[in-house]
Amino acid sequence: MSDNVKSIKHMAFAVRNAEAALDTYVRFLGVPADTPVTEYPKSRNRVALFMLGGIEYQLSQSMDADGRFASWIAARGAEGLHHICYEVADIEKALAEAQQKGATLRECKACKITGSHVHPEGYVAFLDNDAGGIEIEFMQVYNAEELEKYNAVKGI
Amino acid sequence: MSDNVKSIKHMAFAVRNAEAALDTYVRFLGVPADTPVTEYPKSRNRVALFMLGGIEYQLSQSMDADGRFASWIAARGAEGLHHICYEVADIEKALAEAQQKGATLRECKACKITGSHVHPEGYVAFLDNDAGGIEIEFMQVYNAEELEKYNAVKGI
Repeated sequence: MSDNVKSIKHMAFAVRNAEAALDTYVRFLGVPADTPVTEYPKSRNRVALFMLGGIEYQLSQSMDADGRFASWIAARGAEGLHHICYEVADIEKALAEAQQKGATLRECKACKITGSHVHPEGYVAFLDNDAGGIEIEFMQVYNAEELEKYNAVKGI
Repeated sequence: MSDNVKSIKHMAFAVRNAEAALDTYVRFLGVPADTPVTEYPKSRNRVALFMLGGIEYQLSQSMDADGRFASWIAARGAEGLHHICYEVADIEKALAEAQQKGATLRECKACKITGSHVHPEGYVAFLDNDAGGIEIEFMQVYNAEELEKYNAVKGI
């Protein structure tokens, strides 16, 4: 296997109501009841973020009816897993390899940028090709120096 | 957090065609191209199973139009993540706690049994309550003695 994919960085679930979805995880799967729901002004989402089984879950509710997660739910009539963010060692390599094999890139809804760009935790990019119905995000997590440099990139 | 959920045992994705979905994972995410697609006669599914980012993925295609995964896709008009199987230390405890907090149990489509019962790798059960659109399966993985005892439970 390619050694470029290191881990699952997070899984983002499209939900109608972040508190209601979180409540299910609290009651049936032992997620802490005091998990906060945080508003992200740039992406216009409300997100409950927690670790479960070693994976970061993001229960993501759009703040607008035509938002990224709300429109996904509207198209299916159901909540579900919107995208998986894969941590890669080298995002430019991951994008080059994927494009060589037929992938195209998708614009980041929050930043209006296509291809690798800065986010709070690392460089990210989205493919325009889903994998079995799941959107693919790549993230190259910042090293200590980059984290310092991009410390101002918050709220996405 | 409850110490009962140990890890994500697997994630099962409902796909229209296991080979086509696998091909996307091969091209964009470095999954081995020689990953087999296996037919499971009891559950009537064709499944591509592989590890990615430390998690077991099951790309699951129903062999019948009214099958478990095909009907899920038909309802949404889209492929996606059908269920997450959580490995728990004690499945009876997990089910008792969930039921105490309002959960009900769902019949296993392959075995027609509701509640904990034997599967190839462990005792499993399904909740009738989804979490943010995702079906919840619990599995208590067999110890060595149980694995020997239930070695005959195959093909689900």
